[in-house]
Parts: sequence; C-alpha cells; structure tokens
Amino acid sequence: MPLQPHETAFTQAPAPPRPVPVIADAAAALAIADALAAAFAEAAVARDLERRLPVAEVERFSESGLWAITVPKAYGGPGLDSATVAQVIARIAAADGSLGQIPQNHFYALEVLRNGGTEAQKRDLYGRVLAGERFGNALAEIGARDHTRRTRLVRDPAGWFVEGRKYYCTGSLYAHRIPTLVEAEEAGRTATYLVFIPRDAPGVTLVDDWDGFGQRVTGSGSVLFERVAVEPGWVVPFQASLERPTAIGPFAQILHAGIDLGIGEGAFAATLPFVRDRARPWIDSGVTRASEDPLTLHALGDVQVRLAAADALLTRAGRFVDAAQDAPDADNVAAASVAVAEARAASHRAGLLASNRLLELGGTSATDRAEALDRYWRNVRTHTLHDPVRWKYHWIGAYHLDGRLPPRHGAL
Amino acid sequence: MPLQPHETAFTQAPAPPRPVPVIADAAAALAIADALAAAFAEAAVARDLERRLPVAEVERFSESGLWAITVPKAYGGPGLDSATVAQVIARIAAADGSLGQIPQNHFYALEVLRNGGTEAQKRDLYGRVLAGERFGNALAEIGARDHTRRTRLVRDPAGWFVEGRKYYCTGSLYAHRIPTLVEAEEAGRTATYLVFIPRDAPGVTLVDDWDGFGQRVTGSGSVLFERVAVEPGWVVPFQASLERPTAIGPFAQILHAGIDLGIGEGAFAATLPFVRDRARPWIDSGVTRASEDPLTLHALGDVQVRLAAADALLTRAGRFVDAAQDAPDADNVAAASVAVAEARAASHRAGLLASNRLLELGGTSATDRAEALDRYWRNVRTHTLHDPVRWKYHWIGAYHLDGRLPPRHGAL
Amino acid sequence: MPLQPHETAFTQAPAPPRPVPVIADAAAALAIADALAAAFAEAAVARDLERRLPVAEVERFSESGLWAITVPKAYGGPGLDSATVAQVIARIAAADGSLGQIPQNHFYALEVLRNGGTEAQKRDLYGRVLAGERFGNALAEIGARDHTRRTRLVRDPAGWFVEGRKYYCTGSLYAHRIPTLVEAEEAGRTATYLVFIPRDAPGVTLVDDWDGFGQRVTGSGSVLFERVAVEPGWVVPFQASLERPTAIGPFAQILHAGIDLGIGEGAFAATLPFVRDRARPWIDSGVTRASEDPLTLHALGDVQVRLAAADALLTRAGRFVDAAQDAPDADNVAAASVAVAEARAASHRAGLLASNRLLELGGTSATDRAEALDRYWRNVRTHTLHDPVRWKYHWIGAYHLDGRLPPRHGAL
Amino acid sequence: MPLQPHETAFTQAPAPPRPVPVIADAAAALAIADALAAAFAEAAVARDLERRLPVAEVERFSESGLWAITVPKAYGGPGLDSATVAQVIARIAAADGSLGQIPQNHFYALEVLRNGGTEAQKRDLYGRVLAGERFGNALAEIGARDHTRRTRLVRDPAGWFVEGRKYYCTGSLYAHRIPTLVEAEEAGRTATYLVFIPRDAPGVTLVDDWDGFGQRVTGSGSVLFERVAVEPGWVVPFQASLERPTAIGPFAQILHAGIDLGIGEGAFAATLPFVRDRARPWIDSGVTRASEDPLTLHALGDVQVRLAAADALLTRAGRFVDAAQDAPDADNVAAASVAVAEARAASHRAGLLASNRLLELGGTSATDRAEALDRYWRNVRTHTLHDPVRWKYHWIGAYHLDGRLPPRHGAL
Repeated sequence: MPLQPHETAFTQAPAPPRPVPVIADAAAALAIADALAAAFAEAAVARDLERRLPVAEVERFSESGLWAITVPKAYGGPGLDSATVAQVIARIAAADGSLGQIPQNHFYALEVLRNGGTEAQKRDLYGRVLAGERFGNALAEIGARDHTRRTRLVRDPAGWFVEGRKYYCTGSLYAHRIPTLVEAEEAGRTATYLVFIPRDAPGVTLVDDWDGFGQRVTGSGSVLFERVAVEPGWVVPFQASLERPTAIGPFAQILHAGIDLGIGEGAFAATLPFVRDRARPWIDSGVTRASEDPLTLHALGDVQVRLAAADALLTRAGRFVDAAQDAPDADNVAAASVAVAEARAASHRAGLLASNRLLELGGTSATDRAEALDRYWRNVRTHTLHDPVRWKYHWIGAYHLDGRLPPRHGAL
Repeated sequence: MPLQPHETAFTQAPAPPRPVPVIADAAAALAIADALAAAFAEAAVARDLERRLPVAEVERFSESGLWAITVPKAYGGPGLDSATVAQVIARIAAADGSLGQIPQNHFYALEVLRNGGTEAQKRDLYGRVLAGERFGNALAEIGARDHTRRTRLVRDPAGWFVEGRKYYCTGSLYAHRIPTLVEAEEAGRTATYLVFIPRDAPGVTLVDDWDGFGQRVTGSGSVLFERVAVEPGWVVPFQASLERPTAIGPFAQILHAGIDLGIGEGAFAATLPFVRDRARPWIDSGVTRASEDPLTLHALGDVQVRLAAADALLTRAGRFVDAAQDAPDADNVAAASVAVAEARAASHRAGLLASNRLLELGGTSATDRAEALDRYWRNVRTHTLHDPVRWKYHWIGAYHLDGRLPPRHGAL
Repeated sequence: MPLQPHETAFTQAPAPPRPVPVIADAAAALAIADALAAAFAEAAVARDLERRLPVAEVERFSESGLWAITVPKAYGGPGLDSATVAQVIARIAAADGSLGQIPQNHFYALEVLRNGGTEAQKRDLYGRVLAGERFGNALAEIGARDHTRRTRLVRDPAGWFVEGRKYYCTGSLYAHRIPTLVEAEEAGRTATYLVFIPRDAPGVTLVDDWDGFGQRVTGSGSVLFERVAVEPGWVVPFQASLERPTAIGPFAQILHAGIDLGIGEGAFAATLPFVRDRARPWIDSGVTRASEDPLTLHALGDVQVRLAAADALLTRAGRFVDAAQDAPDADNVAAASVAVAEARAASHRAGLLASNRLLELGGTSATDRAEALDRYWRNVRTHTLHDPVRWKYHWIGAYHLDGRLPPRHGAL
Repeated sequence: MPLQPHETAFTQAPAPPRPVPVIADAAAALAIADALAAAFAEAAVARDLERRLPVAEVERFSESGLWAITVPKAYGGPGLDSATVAQVIARIAAADGSLGQIPQNHFYALEVLRNGGTEAQKRDLYGRVLAGERFGNALAEIGARDHTRRTRLVRDPAGWFVEGRKYYCTGSLYAHRIPTLVEAEEAGRTATYLVFIPRDAPGVTLVDDWDGFGQRVTGSGSVLFERVAVEPGWVVPFQASLERPTAIGPFAQILHAGIDLGIGEGAFAATLPFVRDRARPWIDSGVTRASEDPLTLHALGDVQVRLAAADALLTRAGRFVDAAQDAPDADNVAAASVAVAEARAASHRAGLLASNRLLELGGTSATDRAEALDRYWRNVRTHTLHDPVRWKYHWIGAYHLDGRLPPRHGAL
C-alpha cells in the first residue's frame, strides 16, 4: 500500500500532548463547550472557504478536557453520560460542523476500549487521554467486501505488523494515535482488533485527500500502513464486542446525531440575527421589518419545533444508551439502537430544514459567497450521508411492529 | 337564558361522590392509567358509533384517584407534576379520545383554584376532589365579543346570582360541580371569577347538544344559568390570575397536548396488530406478509419518530410548566407557554399522521365502519381544532426571534 | 355460494333502461357534469349520514348520456378521450364521492369490451349502453390466491354457467348488467373472461353489505352466482388482453385519479365559503375576518397548488392513455401506466390534504356532525386505499431509473 | 456614481452581433435547446468551481436563434408561446443553472418593448435581436425605497442622460445593450422608462461583483451610469404598462419557473446514472445494487412526481400567460399571475427536493467537491430567493378565496 504517484504525504505533526483538566460534571462540560464554540465560530467561514485545517482549534478543544469526559471514574476521568457527550459535540458543531465531527471517532475508540480492552490497556490508554493524547481513526475501507484485501494484523516471528489502506479517517490528521481496525487469522477464524497505532510509527503515512463539499476540514483523509510494527499492548480486542451485544453502535450513533443537531442549531442561530437585522421585508407583507412578516415567523416556529424535538429525542436516547452501557443485553442494546435511530432521523431532518430555511428567510442578501451561509447545508447534507436515514426508519418500524432486533453493524 | 323549544334538558345525575385514594407517585398514576385504558378500550368503538355517553367509565376513572393527582400535598393530595398529568391523559386518550379529554377542565379548574383561591376555598374544594367530586366547566360563550351579553355574576340584596349560557362545556354532563367563568362589575371595572356551581343548583340546566364528528362522547354540551343563586365560597377570584403571569395557560395546554399525543399513540397501537395479522401484502411488494413490506416498515418508522418526538417534547415541556408554577414570573411563564406550544405542534402533527397512516397501511379491510378505525382521525382532527396550530408556530417563532412574549389568553 | 343465514338479498331493481343522448364533445360533457354535480350536492350530506343509496341520482346521471361517452364513434357514441372521462368523474365526485366512483367499473367494462370483444359483442353491448343500460362489476374475490376457489365459467352439456362469489362490487346495486370476471379451463390452461350477466339472471343474488366509513353509498356489495346460466354472447374474451399490453389498466386508473382529485376539489370548494362566512378569526391573528388571516391564506394557497398540480397531471396522463389506446405496445402502455401513477400519487396527496385543511381552517364550528364536513376525508381516505400509493412511487422510480416496465395487473 | 476604490471595471466586450436564424416552431426550439444543453453540460462543473464566465457559451446560445424566439411574427420573428420559452430555459438550466438564467431579462426587456414601445422602437430593437444583439438588464437598486436616490433619466438642454447605479444586473456582462429602469420627472409626476443603453456608451461601467454561492456565473454584477447620454429612440415607455394590466409580470415569472424546474430536472438526471452505476447498496437493504433498493426507488418516484407536476403546471400556466398577452385585462392578467405563481411554487419545491435527493441517494461518494454535485442545490436555492415562495402561496390563496387580484409588481 505505498503512496501513489499523484499523492503527497501529510507531514504536519500535532503538538505533543499535555495533561488536561478533569471536567467535573455535565454542566461544566457544556459551559466549556459553549465558550469554545464562541471562539471557534469566528474563523469558521474562512476555514470553510479556504479549506484551512483547524489545527490550533483542535488542540485548544482537546486541551479543554472535553476529549476526556468519557474516561471512567475508575480510571481518573469524570465518566460523563452519553447525552452530555452528544450535546458537547452539538454545541461545537453549531459553530463549525467539522470541529464537531473530529472527536467523534476518538470517543468511539474509547468506547471500544471500555468494552474490549484489557485492564492494562485501559490504564494505559485512558491515561494517555488524560495526558492529552487525541485519537483519530482508520476504520473504513473501499472494496472491503473482499476479505482478502482488508487491512490485516500479521503476527510473524519478526513481530506484529499492520498492513493496509484506510479511507475517510476523520480526525487522523490531528491525532496522536490512530485506532485502526484490522483483521487477523487465528486458529482458522478471523478475529477483529482495534490497534491504537501512534501516528509517527514507521510505515504510517497520512494523506490529506478528503475534499467533500461539506465538512470540509474534518481531515478525513487516507492512512496507509506499510508493514507497521505494532506492540501487543496497542492491540485492543474487538471481536468479542462484535459477537455479543454492546452499546458501541448506539453510542457512536448518538454522537452523529449530535453533529447533525448542532449544525441545525447553528443554522437557526444564524437565521435569527439575519432576519432581525438584515433581511428585507417582502413588498407584499405589509410590514416594515422582516421580523414582523407573519409567514416568516410561522416558518421560524416550524424550524424551532423540529430542532427542539431532535434535541429532546437526543436527550431521551442518551438514557437508553447509558442503560445499554450498564447492562448490555440484547434487549437493552436494541432499545438503545432504536432510540438513537429515532434521534438521528429527527436531527437529520431538522438539520436539513434549518439550513435550508436560513436562506429562504434570509433572501438574496444571504447568498453572498463570502459569508458562506450555505455551509450549514453543505455540512449537514454531507454528514447525514454517513449512513442513510431511510433505513433507520425501516428498522425503527420493524422493531416497533414485531420486535425485530436491529442490525448491530454500528451504523444503526 | 331559558331552554329553547327544540332543546331538552339533560337530567341524568352522576352517582354521589365517594372518597378516592391518594395515588403515591407518578409511576403509580401511570400504572393505574394503563389498567383503566385497557378496560376502557373494550367498548370504545360502541361508544363512538352509538354516541353512548361513558357515564360508568367516567366514574371508574375518577374513583381511581387519578382526578386528584394535582391536589397539592399541603391539602392532602400527591401534587404530581404536569407531565405526569398529561401522560395520564395521553394513556386514557389512546383508548378513548373522549375519555382523555373529559378531565381536562377539571384539572384546569383546580389550577385556577391553586392560583386564585382563598385558603378556605382551597381547603373546601381540594377536599371535595379527594372526596370524589368531579368538576366540569362552563367557560366558552358564543358571541362573547359583546361584553354585555356574557355570563355575569350579579350581587344584589337578595344574594349572588349567575345568569348566562355557555357552550362546549366538556365534562359537565358527568360533573358534580361546574366551574363557570363569569364577569362582575366592581367599582367601575370588570372582574372575572370562576364559580364552582353544583350541577344540581336550582336554575342550572344542562343540554346534551354537542354532536361533533369526533370526540363524540365528551359531553361538551351547553349549560344554562337562570338566576342561579351562588354562595361566596364558590366564587374563586380569577382576575388577578389574568393580570399577572401564571402557569394556568401552559398547564391547560399541556393537557391538550396529552390528548392529541394519546390519540396518535392509540392509532399507532391499533396499526401494529392490523399490519401484523390482517393487512394483505401488496401484490407488487414481493413479500408474503404485509409486515415484511419495506415501504410499510419505513412508513411505520416515520410515525414512530413523530410520536416519540411529541412524547419527548411533552415531557420537556412539563419541566417548564412546573418551573412556571413554582416561580410564575413573566419569563418563566413565557418559556413554559412556548415549550408547551412546541409540544402541541408536535403532538398535533403526530396525531394526524398516525391516524391517517393506520388506514393507509391497513388497506381497504381497515375501512369497515363497524370497527370505526377512522375514529382516531375524527377524534384528533376535532380536538386539534380547539386552538389552531398555525398560530402556535407564529408565537414560537416570535419568541425565539426576538424574545416577544406570547399572549396569555390560555390558548397558547 | 348460497346466501348466508345472516345475509339478506338486495332486491330493489333499477328502472328499465331508456335511450340516452349522445353527448357531442368534451365541453358538453363537462357542462352536463357540472349541472348534475350542482344537483347532486344538495342531498349529499343526508346520503352520507343515513347511508341512503342514490338510486334516483344514478338514474339521472346515466340518463344524461355521460355513461355513454366512451362508446366509440364507430358504434354510435362520441368516443371522448380519457382525460374528459376522468374530469367528468372528478366533477361528480366533488359533489358526492360515491356518485363519482359508481360508474368507474362501467367504463372499465367498456374498455375490456373494446379490447377483447367480438364485433358482434361490441355492437350488442355498446348498443345497450346507448339504450341506457348501466354496468356494475363483479371482479374482486377474497382469498383469490387459491385458484380453485375462484369464480368459474363452467361449460357443460347443459350449457354455460357461472359459479362463485364476488366482493366490493361497486355499482352493481344500481346496474342492469354485472360484468363478472371468471376463469375457465380450456385445453389444459386457464382463460379469463368478463361475462356481462344481467342482474336479473336466475341465480344472481346481490347483497348490500358494503359498510365502509367512507364512500358509503357506492353500493359496493357482494354478488353471488349460483349456477347462473349465461349466453356465449355475454362472455367477452379477456385473456388476450391480459397477455399483451393494453391500456385497460391505465385507463381504469385514471378514473380512480379523477375520483380522488374530485373529492379534493369538493373539499376545497367547501373550504372557501366556510372561511369567508363562518370561520371565526383567531384571536392572535389581529384581523377581524378569518379570510384576512395571513396563515390561512398561505394554507389555502398550498392546497390550491396541490390540486392544480394533480389536475394538470391528470390531463397530461390522459394524453398518454389515449396514445396507448391508439397504439398499445409495451412502451406506450408502460408510459401511460407511469404517467397515470404520477397523477394518482398527486391526486391522492392533494385529496387528503384538501380534506384535512377544510377542517383545520374551518375550526371547531366545522365539526358539527350534521354538516358532515368530515365526509371528504372519509371518502378520499377510503378510496385511496384501493391500491396503495406507496408502490406507485416505487414503479415510477423504477421506470425512470432504468426503464423497468411496471406490472400490468391493472392496479398501476 | 463613480467606481469605488476597491472596485474594478469589467472591460471584456462581447463579440459583435451576427444575424441569427429564425427558429420555425416550438419543436425546433426545444430540439436546439437540447443540443445546446448537451454541449453546455460538459464544462458546467468547471465553470461552477472556478467561477469561469461562460462567454463563449452565451454567444453560442444566442447565435442559435433561441434568444429571438419571442420576436413577433409581424417583426420577422417566430413569436413562440410563453411555455416554449420557459421550457427552452428549463432545458438549458438543467445543464447549467446560470446559463438558463442569463437570457431571462433579455426576454423580459422584449416583453416590455412589446407592451410599451413605439412602432419605430419595435422595428429597431426587434431587428437588433434578429441581428444577434443580446440584452442584459439594469433594474434592481439597493435602498430604492428612497425615490430621490433612484437611477434617473434627466432631460436637459444638453440632451438626455441617465445617472445611477444598479445591482444584480444578470446577463449584463454578456450583453450588447443594457435595458435600464429609470425614472423621470414629467409635469409634476414620475414616469418610468426602460432605456436600452448600449453597453459601450460613454459613462457606462460594468462591475463583475456578483459572488453568490449559487448561480455563480450569471454575471449578475453592478452597472454604473455616470451622465450617460442616451437617445430618445432607446427610451421605451414603461409607465403605461405599470398603470394598466399587462402580462409582463407573469411572463417574467414563468421564465423564473423554467429556471427552477430545469435545475431540478438536471439534478434528477444526474441522480439516475449515479444510482445505477456508482451508489453503493446499503448494507441493510439486502440487495446487491443500489438501484434495487426499494426505499431508493420510492424516493426517486417521489421526486419524479414533483417534477412532472411542476412541468405540467408550467405548461398550463403558459396558456394563461398567452391569453393575458392577447387580451391583457385585469381578469386575464390576474389569472395568469396566479397560474404562474402556482407553477413557481411547484417548481421551487420540486427543484429543492430533487437537488437534495441527488445527494441523499448518491451517498458519501456523491460529496466529492470536484464533481460539484451540490451545485444543483446551490443554484436552485440561490435562484428561488429572487422572490419568496411563501408570499406566492398567500396570493394564490387570496385569489381563490375571494377573487382578490394579486399585486402587479412583477414578482408574482
């Protein structure tokens, strides 16, 4: 999996990790998120227009301690609940959709660790997070239906090695370690692991090749692994977590719901001052200010109801995820998956509605490319394609109709 | 306001009140509601088709103690929170929309009492509720824009008298007392009172003249007051509650949200076994059972997401109502009004969607009049007209746009 | 298939047929339909509430000549185009949904005749229509998946006989002949025929057992055939029309589109005077008449756009049906089926929207059961279940995606 | 109105006009449009991404004769009907939304000429169009509520002069003449004219300052007029056309409907091959190709129904516009305005839906910025803001409710 001729390695290294504060509780986490969001909003347009990677912002974000809020109390963290994590992400995503998405896989990796890691691995890796390390991801493959071409962990006399290529590795450009999904042959069967590989391990090459029209600076590039030597301590067992019910899937998904909700809330927050101060009253409305237009007020109310509903469903889904984390049996996990799918369906629709309405109510003066008010739509449209909402409705229906358990592939 | 030639007095008296149990907490209330709902569901179709008044059902309902759950602890009741009351109503409404609506004004009257009653009145009237009395209502007037024609409290040397005619008096046919909205001239101004008039007071005549196509057995008839002598103790001051912010409006509205949500949930609950057991698979679907039709499952999921959202918004709104009850300042009351309006908008739409989809997914075999599966739609369509959702969106928009406070006329 | 103990035969015979005028052209047909619709509207509510069969109205309807407008010119009729037939039905359905639906199968039977009948049969049966005969239908069976239980044509030495039971036989109560779908065993294969059986043939028993909550007086009862002797001249070949492409399916479907569109247009027509004259302005709207409420006007505009779209799609689909009738190859028939499915999808949605909005904008005063303003919704909801719109979208999508031909089972 | 320090004049002149063919009829016009659209589609992405002005494309477009199709037969043109013009625009807009919009004001100016021009002006200006001239526009002003700041025609002894600044002058960068809306003081009243000013007239300065996120290359920049001397022959009377009913407004609007419809059709056309060939089947769908996913097919059908409806409404509206052009009385003009508003409402919604669904069904692989599949949404979202659809619904409702005539300001 060598670098291709037309590709260039991304070589900008993150600053070394520094210990982060342990955030006391949900209220503190949300307050910190709000303060960061206000700061991150300032240059969000420039980052979007110029595809300028938010290297400094990510560092500031993780230095706040917010990337450590799921570290369990037993390992020195605050062990905050799922809804709080999702809401933190939503608030950051309201300011900059990409920044909201960047830590999603960091938290995902920590949840895999919590479910499958050895005691020693938990002590080590949770400790690293408290010490300021950020985790990216190397999960997705193209053409992964062909097992033989997937990224593999090879154990041979010379040591353990990872070999392969991954795509859509959100957050990896900014990460200290890249949790990498690998398969290994073991006694005639295939076992899956998540290997927490240091980004600077020899043989690891990053490529900054994500260039979507939305979520432009997530750094969701490719990562190449050329006979990368890995240590057994980095290799966190994942197979058992795939074979029994766990909350990993719904936990991952509730964070995605937070991203869509947050982008929608950001769009709505951008709509209000625009309507108040800049939109021109329509000639037929008979009012002197756009904010008095009865059809505008009605349309705003509609957006707000959808966003409030998505927010309330996210909070409700968080309770199901927490319950499934506490007692991960098939019923609890299915209930959590479905509750989170309901939240995602609502946040998906609310996010798209809010980002469309921003422009509908702003009018032509909202179309100036320099203000990039279309970025909310580009961001939520891009992110909602991660896994299609139409099949979420399907599984929600099947579960409520006759108790069919949803799939546990992590995208529901 | 004498009885008109074409009218007949309704003379069926309710059974005398009997003391009711004090329900311990929200969980107990919901469990009792579920059990009653199961019983009430049995003859719901017959009541709808034949417009058979649910006299026995209402008695069983109030004997359960559920009509006393808002009596404050200080007066011997459990003082349950607003969301619980709304959810109790929702569960009953799922079985029979009319039964869900009947106690709405009973609770409303108790909330007026809580805000404006004297200490003696509270002791008396809360005590009556614990002793098993049910309250109806006589609030609405037709042509009430003309002040001089409204129902009046007249104080003259012979005593205090109420004179007038009221419409849409939901629950009065089943009630022991009829809280009646009246105006009185006092020192040059008009003051409003709610008079808790016994149904058997001389001069009170009930007319069973509600005949809507939905919510058919709410008993929302007319009440005539012909020089009805009233005692000062029955006359609860209301004027002050109109002039300062109170949670009366949002409290009344959250119960309406419960009705719509409940009807929608009832429709969804009726959809599931029909699709599982009776709907025929569509010829093009390529499946052998309707419950495997992918488009059916998708449509069911959509309904479920809307209902879950309405449910979550109702619970969220309850917290705002409780806060406004505790500290009824202008901000808290506005926030509660808007949160409840959001819940109502969502329950309105979810209720209509669910009742329509029941038939869409049931198919022609669901149209048999004898099963009255159209009753959910007729019920929710009728009840949602109480106050129009389109203006709820307006006020939600205005509040979020620039903090405009919603009106406090009780219909928002 | 004898009458069951709980069943009663329907024995009311229609008046003998009388020759009808040949309507000159589309404009004349529509004008006659408008005049009839105005007359039929008068007692539509009473018919709905009391389930009073429109015997006299159906006779007046067919005496107008409108039931003969598809008789080809070569056989003495005007041979009007498909869109005109559908629009005639729409205008009648706007006044009374059941009356709009009653002739649907009459026209269907004539289209089967046109495709499969012998020259002699066409002369005979078209002549009967011009002489005033009305055709009902006996097509549907319950449990028809079991071939051996279907209604059969038996040819034995004693003659030809039909034996079986049919359901949902719209129009049959009012008809002179009942075109009946039968199967016959022929040389080792099954052949299908449509047998134009006189209603008074010995062995034919009608049962007035349709009792849906909508389309209440279509007379869609059951018909029993107990060894009914039939003449070869009545037995119109259908098998070939099933095996090659014909426009029978899209022609039948465009009439269904007309019914839904018409009911929707009737609901909208009922909305306008109600809003102008009777609906009360909402307290928050700041206007003195409901017809000035900006949110009401916006909602009315939305309904109108949907209805106009459905109308325009119906007219457009008519051209495709006409083309498929003229040159019934696979491509033309598929194009017609899809164009009609598009019209049906639009009329389905527009009809439901219009009938819901009538009440939303009318308010509580629109719920009086005696006015039965809910009948539009009950009618369109019932009729749209005939064949589900969700699978129409499927086939529309498949056709446009990669040219897949829709099924030719007549329900698309 | 001098150029501001930060502004640069746009100095690229169009090629000199060359005589164009007279297109025979609607079919020929549509065929030519299809051929051009196929050619224009090739570099549409590059033009969008790089904001590369389509100078050569506009020339090819107008050289085809399509810009002359509304020249009346009496003046040597083919005088094609309104729906055909709108459909030509739709087909070009499907390939490139900006190219579809560029001639909109050219046709608008010709319609103003037809209504208000003198015989000599018609001969001159129609002749110029047949000779290959293209017209841009200079209509909109910012802050135009202040009359005294509007662009003015001044007649003084030295001659006639135009002075002012205009914005959003779509098409002007590519035009030979710029029809400019001006006011003049005449005998105590203000009169409006449209002045067909040559782009190279001394004192005219173009600024390429439109930079919206959609419709990026319409060239909708600013035009400055610094004491531009104009000839009386260029000054086409407009005042009378504002004071009496004309079809100018609905004619202008139906072209806008064509733009939105065309962009939507372009998005749908881009969806189909993507779903067929590139979209990956979703893991839960149980199918091996995305084009078999039943939820995808359903969603495609929904888009197609909306587009077909918008198309049918546009064609229907064209007949109303033609009638209003033939007999421009108040009733005909109102009917045309409303029919066109209905078409615009439908095309607005269909365009947004189609452009959103393209991505929803394409999935993450459709987000590659280099393919710019988001451009359909950016284009239709930008163009639909020209005048808000919400007020179209208002006027449609008012017209159908009680015959209120819509405003004649040209944006309905």
